[in-house]
Formats: sequence, structure tokens, C-alpha cells
Amino acid sequence: MYLERIEKPNDIRKIPKDKLDDLAREIREFLIQTISVTGGHLGANLGAVELTMALHLVLDFPEDKLIFDVGHQSYTHKILTGRKDGFATLRKFGGMSGFPKSKESDCDSFNTGHSSTSISAGLGLAMARTIQGRKNTVVSVIGDGSLTGGMAYEALNNAGKMNTPFIIVLNDNNMSISENVGGISQYLNSIRTAEAYLDLKDEVKERLKNVPRGKSLIHGIQRAKSSFKSFVIPGMFFEEMGLTYLGPVDGHDIPAMVRVFSEAKRCKTPVLVHVITQKGKGYAPAERHPARFHGAEPFEIETGLPAHKRTKPNYTDIFSTVMCKLGDRNPEVIAITAAMPDGTGLKRFRNMYPDRFFDVGIAEQHAVTFAAGLAKEGLRPIFAVYSSFLQRAYDQIIHDVCLQNLPVVFAVDRAGLVGSDGETHQGAFDLSFLSSIPNMTVMAPKNKWELSDMLKFAVKHDGPVAIRYPRGLAYEGLSDFRTPIQYGQAEWIYRESDICLVAVGCMVAVAEEVREKLIAKGLKVSLVNARFVNPIDEELLSEVFKFHKYVITMEENVLRGGFGEKVRDYAVSVDADNEILTVGIPDVFVEHGSVGELRKELGIDAESVYLRILDILEE
Amino acid sequence: MYLERIEKPNDIRKIPKDKLDDLAREIREFLIQTISVTGGHLGANLGAVELTMALHLVLDFPEDKLIFDVGHQSYTHKILTGRKDGFATLRKFGGMSGFPKSKESDCDSFNTGHSSTSISAGLGLAMARTIQGRKNTVVSVIGDGSLTGGMAYEALNNAGKMNTPFIIVLNDNNMSISENVGGISQYLNSIRTAEAYLDLKDEVKERLKNVPRGKSLIHGIQRAKSSFKSFVIPGMFFEEMGLTYLGPVDGHDIPAMVRVFSEAKRCKTPVLVHVITQKGKGYAPAERHPARFHGAEPFEIETGLPAHKRTKPNYTDIFSTVMCKLGDRNPEVIAITAAMPDGTGLKRFRNMYPDRFFDVGIAEQHAVTFAAGLAKEGLRPIFAVYSSFLQRAYDQIIHDVCLQNLPVVFAVDRAGLVGSDGETHQGAFDLSFLSSIPNMTVMAPKNKWELSDMLKFAVKHDGPVAIRYPRGLAYEGLSDFRTPIQYGQAEWIYRESDICLVAVGCMVAVAEEVREKLIAKGLKVSLVNARFVNPIDEELLSEVFKFHKYVITMEENVLRGGFGEKVRDYAVSVDADNEILTVGIPDVFVEHGSVGELRKELGIDAESVYLRILDILEE
Repeated sequence: MYLERIEKPNDIRKIPKDKLDDLAREIREFLIQTISVTGGHLGANLGAVELTMALHLVLDFPEDKLIFDVGHQSYTHKILTGRKDGFATLRKFGGMSGFPKSKESDCDSFNTGHSSTSISAGLGLAMARTIQGRKNTVVSVIGDGSLTGGMAYEALNNAGKMNTPFIIVLNDNNMSISENVGGISQYLNSIRTAEAYLDLKDEVKERLKNVPRGKSLIHGIQRAKSSFKSFVIPGMFFEEMGLTYLGPVDGHDIPAMVRVFSEAKRCKTPVLVHVITQKGKGYAPAERHPARFHGAEPFEIETGLPAHKRTKPNYTDIFSTVMCKLGDRNPEVIAITAAMPDGTGLKRFRNMYPDRFFDVGIAEQHAVTFAAGLAKEGLRPIFAVYSSFLQRAYDQIIHDVCLQNLPVVFAVDRAGLVGSDGETHQGAFDLSFLSSIPNMTVMAPKNKWELSDMLKFAVKHDGPVAIRYPRGLAYEGLSDFRTPIQYGQAEWIYRESDICLVAVGCMVAVAEEVREKLIAKGLKVSLVNARFVNPIDEELLSEVFKFHKYVITMEENVLRGGFGEKVRDYAVSVDADNEILTVGIPDVFVEHGSVGELRKELGIDAESVYLRILDILEE
Repeated sequence: MYLERIEKPNDIRKIPKDKLDDLAREIREFLIQTISVTGGHLGANLGAVELTMALHLVLDFPEDKLIFDVGHQSYTHKILTGRKDGFATLRKFGGMSGFPKSKESDCDSFNTGHSSTSISAGLGLAMARTIQGRKNTVVSVIGDGSLTGGMAYEALNNAGKMNTPFIIVLNDNNMSISENVGGISQYLNSIRTAEAYLDLKDEVKERLKNVPRGKSLIHGIQRAKSSFKSFVIPGMFFEEMGLTYLGPVDGHDIPAMVRVFSEAKRCKTPVLVHVITQKGKGYAPAERHPARFHGAEPFEIETGLPAHKRTKPNYTDIFSTVMCKLGDRNPEVIAITAAMPDGTGLKRFRNMYPDRFFDVGIAEQHAVTFAAGLAKEGLRPIFAVYSSFLQRAYDQIIHDVCLQNLPVVFAVDRAGLVGSDGETHQGAFDLSFLSSIPNMTVMAPKNKWELSDMLKFAVKHDGPVAIRYPRGLAYEGLSDFRTPIQYGQAEWIYRESDICLVAVGCMVAVAEEVREKLIAKGLKVSLVNARFVNPIDEELLSEVFKFHKYVITMEENVLRGGFGEKVRDYAVSVDADNEILTVGIPDVFVEHGSVGELRKELGIDAESVYLRILDILEE
């Protein structure tokens, strides 16, 4: 067992060179074993085992800096820096994060989570190193999927002109989470399948040598800005951006990678090393179904099938079904995803209406403005996107959609607490950042039927609409309450007196629990489903203020700029003197853990809210 | 006068071909005359006269769609679509916008204002056309500066795989607002100066023909994915993205452009036409000083000098001066701009400390994460940026800066109302979107000395800080009030009773006026300078609530999620029963006009606020 010898950073160098493949095998077995129990990102990590080992053989930690783009492929790095034991608590509350975290280890040079940030961050570390007169090496590892994000290109454009050593490793597996898309993907594919013209290269050279003036011609070509290698050597795209291109190199061949990384380390200017890897490498089910093993639930190792079969639909399933119906009824409905046809549930729509489905790659900014263009011509685009990723298109939502009041629908999945992916992925801000934009309607469904009703409402509404819904099982309670959706109107669920719970989306179910506890205490408790966060239902709120002394708002969003703040703002504006408690995410970033644990930690679970209300009543 | 014959769209076709150059000359004269009086974007418009004319000769309006990236170069388009008379009120309150606006003309196919959106929007219009079975042509005109924005690349990546007709015109003048930067700029430059290898191309072809098997070699090369033209024909970068590249063509040669645009129209897939233009063309001062004539104030035509000499410093000047001092005292201070060394006032810093200055191009996302990387290593980066452009880096602020609590300073210029650039450029949202992020400190100075004090405070603060300040003259009043900046503490200016005005940043000056009016009425009025919007000063606010019945918050930011909402939220949380009026930008997008006119329109000028307060007192 060579894996046991890895106890701290740089220990890998003590492993005999001819045993490195054994270590790689052991790491793979460890990853499969562990993740089959805890869940986690399997495919990307299996693909990056040798790549990470080769980097660790070339770099010194923590002096040298290594940044993983997105970061969910950093498991081998965690193992090689002495965090193997942490995998027992991987992505669990209080346990090890599934992403790089500086506070876990000083070998995690920069925290990541979202796509396409690593080149910018690495360039920052590299320039700081140069300004401060240090000599360490800085490496950013970025997947080909992340290269579709515009931010990566902005950074490449800057790296190209920086006169400082910096290594970008392109971990190219021809995948983002699902299949990769677009021109850059086709281009990389042309490099991967380039044997044909590598042969050609030699032939051309040979022939040119025999041409009269052939040598001077070759020389002339080489001097030209766009030199001879442009068509015979792959990587011209990156060379044109001003980077030195090395590769492609086999990402499962450790000695080959060590050679090329060592060469890259000697360069005085930014270098891009192109490494070809296979996602899921070494585990047949993951090789066959890369999307399924991207972020995997616990699974049976033998079959690769989920360990716990899900029998009830989650919100994404509901969205998926409704989208197919909408697509059938309404030829103007268009579906857009940013590299997440599986995660957002749009795969079925894609299969049914391929001409009205667009996967734009990891490109949320483009997705939103592209949708605005479609909407401008009378179509009804629906952009399905995770809440925390929609943050990346904030300006486009304001500038391209809302300013022109275009009917783009935002299906904001993973809104609120997301659980084990942790702080970078919590959908904690969408109610705040969306609600401050003029023309933007913001809604949240209380249960699975309401998600369906809201989507149908949204595609008919003459302006932008965001519908936010959480990760996880779709709530099937309150099925009797299904009054039609009316613009800007909240819904009375129970109408009593004294205390009124006004809850947003998934918190309606929590509020129900709170209400039952309070009723058991003999209290009278009303329950309102807010439905709309922008605009808020002022008329209904006026009634709430009139007939209740205590008003409790509940939302799974930061309190700042959220629903509760708006309710309080309205209360002051109408001189209501109610006691208003706002329940929501406080002013902190929320780490990983189950949604239940996190709610408890934040004081927004039913029991905590119940106790807080009792406190207020006692005062 | 051929210009007089242009009264409505498509009238340009009635001008004899040999008179088009005369029309171009007349348009230039008209633009120089008009803008010298009204102010506006001169350089970009002078550069695009023939380009726009050529497009109008090839397209049918309004059936065909034309999108101008950023849009400030659309003046000739406005003239050619019958809006010449509108220039009398250009950028004036109630007058013609300086940007494309669908509501002004159905020939403005999509509104723009920020950079790098046009390819995404155009692709949306083009796909909608195809889905709806129409045949019109869609053209997006984008400058080479805008190509440094990642969003443009996301769109190019998608355009490359779209099997639909779509024309991208690259208006290449080797400038963004200032000099252009980065790898892509160098690459375009290599095309512009490519005569050398255009010759080479012919030579290579000739020679290969004479080689044994030469023809089949050429054939083989042409079949190869990355074909022979890759090194002999410019534009390979775009070809690699999957686009057909045509050009480069002289952007001041109308017949040449008409030929190439006509050819582009016949293509069944996306085409990029590379047009070389000169910014400021035909007006010597603008050719010599392109940055000065980017967004020009009224000027004397003969000399090109400003018509009204500014004698007092604006906030940008103050920032510029303080940055140079900070740079001198603190070797860790780094300055970053996204293509605006002039606009943000960083030019002097660049000249003094070139090694600690970075112009990243129009790339706000990269700028923020690059700053985070620098900060992670102990440096003190200051990113100077206009408020509305910072919207584009919202996710990076959360994900790369605030999550890691890194000490990046955001110098948020053009915050609040910006005046004549209008709705796309109003800095109306920053207090809201920044204040909801944990770890982010948000400040606003009341006058020029406080901006200086805040900057000095910010570079010492151990975490992210945003300082927002407006366009225009730096306030020089209240010079006696200069208590040291303490984290989270507001400042009492006048401490009386009954009414308390709590104002943010530039609204402190307005509040002073309001206070004088109220005092003249015999009322007692306190004035607080908020200084911090996040966190708010709860201790001081408690005193405010205690000693005043009426509290009036004043901010030049949307009310939703802004300072006033937070004050009201706090008031409810402490059961304060004060009458709280929140003054700020209501839930609308604010069009162009002078800041004074806009404040009046929105009811946030001194007189309006005064009257609103009187109303409340009377109630």
C-alpha cells in the first residue's frame, strides 16, 4: 500500500518511480470506495489522478501554488496533501469540503467552486509573486468545459501579454458536465484527432526542403508573426492569444507529464500545457455515464447504480415535465441551459424539441442576452440555471432583459440552501439581487403543483419573470391549495388571527410545521404563501397587519435585501406597528452540510423558528 | 446637400453612387458641428460613418436587423433612419438618446449601452428568425475593444456552431476607449500589418504547385481540419471558432465594404467581416486624441479644446490624486482598470507606477478575480470601475473576493445618477447588490476630503471595501466636518431634534439644502452623514430614533435593497415607531438628462424632498 505512505505534502516524491502507477491505482480504488458511500464528484476526480500526481512530483508545497478551476476535481490533491482521512466526512456538516479551501490546508492556494475563475486568480498569484520578488511556480488547472466561460478568455487575453512565468494546465476531457459545446470544443477536438496532420507536417517540411529556396522559405515562414507551426502544430489558438503552447500530452502517462511540466516550469512567460484525460477513467460505469457520475449520490460499486433509489420527484423533475408540456402546447417556448441539460432537467425537452433547445456551454452571460434576443422577436425563452450561477449574469439581466422589459423566464433551480456543495453553491442571494431590478417579477412556489402553475403563468406574462425553487424533493403537501396565480398576489393558506406566518417558496412547508407547533400550544396562527417577492402583495399584507399582532416572514435567502426586509419596509411606510420577525439567512456565508443541518445551524428550521416566536410572545 | 435627401430609412439608396463620399463628408461635418455643441461620442462615430453607410446600402430597414455593440457609435445610423433632427436634443432630458433605442425607431433592433453584448443579442435575433421561418439579415457591429469582454467570446463560441446566417462586423480601430490591450489585440494587429505574409501566401502556393505531388499535397492540406490557409490567411482565430472570416477590408472604402457585406449576406452560416477603421476619422483633433474625444464635452471645433473649462476637481480627479499618494506610501497598492485609465483617473498612477498598474481590457470579471489573486498574496489591489459596469462582476465579488474575505478595494465611480448617458449607465444598484454580500463593507463620501479619508481607511481594512462616489464635481462643502473614519460609524453633522436627515454620499449635500429650507421654516433639523451603508451604524441610528420623531433617509440608489430599507428594517427590529421617509430612486429605469433634471423628475432633489417632508409634518 503506497497510499499509506502519503501523510503530508510532498510525500509522493518518496514513492519509487516505478510504483507510481500502483499509487494511482490505489488512489482510484480509494476514491471509488469513498465516494460510493459519501457521494461526491467521481468522474472528474478519476480523470485527474495522474495529472495531479505529476503536478505534485514537479511542484513544492505550499510554496508553489496550485489552483483547480471549479475545484471539484481536487480530491487527489487533498489526498496528496495529507487529507485522506478527511474523506470520511467529505461534504458532510462540519467535515471536509468537496472543494479547495485555504482554511483546510495551505496547499489550497485559492478557493474555487464556480467555473472559469482559475486563470484570473492564478494570474493574480503569479503577478503578486513577481511584484514581491519571489520565485515560486503558479499553476492553474482548467477543464475544457470551463474554457467556454468568457471569464477564462478574458484571463487568457491578459495572460498572453503578461511577462511573467505562469502555467495553465488545460485538462481536456472533451466534456463539461455533459457534452461540451461550441467552436472552442470543436477546435480542441481537432487537436485531439490531429495525428493526420502531424504526419502532414513532416511531409510538408521534407518537401519544402527540396524546393529551390525551400530553406529560406521555411525561415521566412517561421519569422512571420503567424508562423509555420500554425497549421502543422496544434495550439495555434492559444499561441495567437500570446501563450506558449505545449502538448497535447497523455494525461494518464505520469512520466510524460512530468517531463512537460518540468519544461513549462522553466519558461519565463505564460505557458499552456494541453493534457488529454478521460473523465471517469478506470471505473467502467463512470466512463460510460460521465454525466451521471459528475456529482454522484452514493452508489453500488459493482453496478454503478444509485444506492438509494429515489421514488419521489424533485423540483427539477417537475420542471422537466412541465417544460415538455409547454413545449408541446406553445411553439414559441425555447429552452436554454448553460452546460447543464442533465442538472436542470432540460434533457427531455432537448430530445423532444431539439430545434428549440440551446446548450450554450458554461456561458451564463451569453445565455441571458441570447435569450433577450429571442424574446425581442416574440419567442418565449426559458433559461434554466442554478441560482448561484445566475449571479454571473446579473448585469445582463438588468441591461439586456429588464431594461427592455423582455419576456425571458428564469427557472432558478438550487435556490436557497443546496447542501453538500457548500458555500460557493448556496443560492442565497437571488431574491435580493433580482428584486431590486425594475420590471423583474420574482416568484417562488410552495409545492410541486405551484411550480407548474407558475411556469405556465410566466410564459404568458409580458415581461421578465424569475421562478426560484430549491434542490431536493418537491413538496407534495398543501395539495388542496391551488388558487390560480394572479400577478402580484399572495395566497392565504390558513386565515386565523394573532400570529401570521408569511412564507416564501420552500419555507411554506417549514411554516406549516411551525404553525402546528404553535397551534398545539393553543395559539391562533395564520399562514400566507407569499408567491411573489417582487412585487410584494401590499393589499394582502395590509390585511395581515390589521388582523395580527405578530408577523413572521420566512425565506431561504439572505435577510439583507430579501423578502422580510421588504415587508418591514412596507410596514413602516403604512405606519403598521406590528411586531415583525424576519426569518432568513443571516449575514454569513453558509458552508456545506445537509439542508436540515444547515437550517438548524442558521436558526431557520421549524423548531428554531417556533422557539424564537415563543420568545417574542413571552416578551 | 445630399444629407437633406435622407428623411427616412433606406433613403440612402437614392443617392448616386458617385456622391456617397460627399454624403459621408456631410455627415462628418454634421456630427462635428452637432457634438461640438451638445457633447457626445465623437471619435467612434466619425470612425463608423462609411461602415454604417455601407451597411445601409446592403440592408433593408426595418426588416433587416442591425445591432451596435455598446451603441455610442450609432449616430450615423440614427441620421440614416431619419433622426437627424433629434440631434438638437441629443442626450438631453426628454431628447434623443445617445444609444440605440427601439422606442425611438424600429430600425434600432436591440438596445445596447454596455460592451460585448451584441453578438449574443444578434445570435438571438438570428435564431428567432430561423425558428420563425423568416429570411431577414441580422448584423452585429462590434469593436475590437469589445472583443476583450468575455461575453463576446462566449457568443463567438456559440455562433461558430450555429447553422444559421448571421453577420458579425468587427469594427477594428485598434482602440477600446483608450488603447486596446491583450493577446487578442496583438493578434488583430498582426492581421492589420499582414501584407508580409499575404505575399508569402502566393509564393508558397506557387512553389507547392511545382513540387512533385504538390497538387495532391495542397489538396490534402486543404482537407485537413486546420487547413492550409491557417497560416497564410489572416482570421484563423475566428475560423478556429467555427466562423467564416472575410477581410480585412478598408472601413472607409464604401464600394469595397458593399461588396464584402453583399457576399456575407449570401452565406448560410455565421460570417465575421473584419473592417479596419480609424477612430476620429476626418477631424484632426479627434484623430490625435482619441481618448479625449471618446465621450466629449462641448468643444471648440477649430482647436478641439473644451468649450467650458473646468476649474474645480471632480471626484475622479480626487481619486486620481489620492491614488498617486497611496502608491507612493504603500508599495502594496496596485491599481486595476477595465479599459478606462482615463475615465477612472488612473492614468497618473499608471505613469508613476507602471509595474503596479494593470489595464485588463473590457473584462470586469477577470479584473475582480485577478484582484482577488493579488490580495490573497498580501497586496492591496484597488479596482476603479464605473458602478454600472461593476454589475458585470457581481458573481466574482461574491465568489472570489467576499467568500475569502480578501482585501480588495472597489473604487466605484459614476455611482448614482450619471446624466446624459442614460439608463444603461446609471449607477443605481450598487448599494443594493453590494450590501447583501457578507464581509463586504460599503461606504460613500460626503465630500472630496472624505473620499480621500475613505480610500486611506480602505487600503488598511482587512477585508473587501467598496467606496461609491458620483460623476461630477467633488463637493467642497462641510469642510469643517472631518472626524476620522471609524469602521461602521456614521457621522453627526448637525445634532438638533425633531427631524433627522440621514444621507448617503452625494445626498449629504442635498440634505444640507433641505435642512436649510426646513430651518428657514423654524424647524429643528439634525443631519447625519451615513458614511457606511454596510454595516449600518445601529448605535447611532438608535440615538436618531430616540431624539427625533421624523427620520428621512436619502440616497441616490434604488430604494429596493438600499440604505433606507435597511434603516427601516432596523427600526422595526428595535420597535422604533418613528415616522421614516425613505428618499431614493423609485422602481423605474432612469433615462438620460442632467443630474439636476433627473433628481427633480424622481423627486429626490432638495426642493422635492423638502416638500415631501412638509407634507408629512402636516399629516
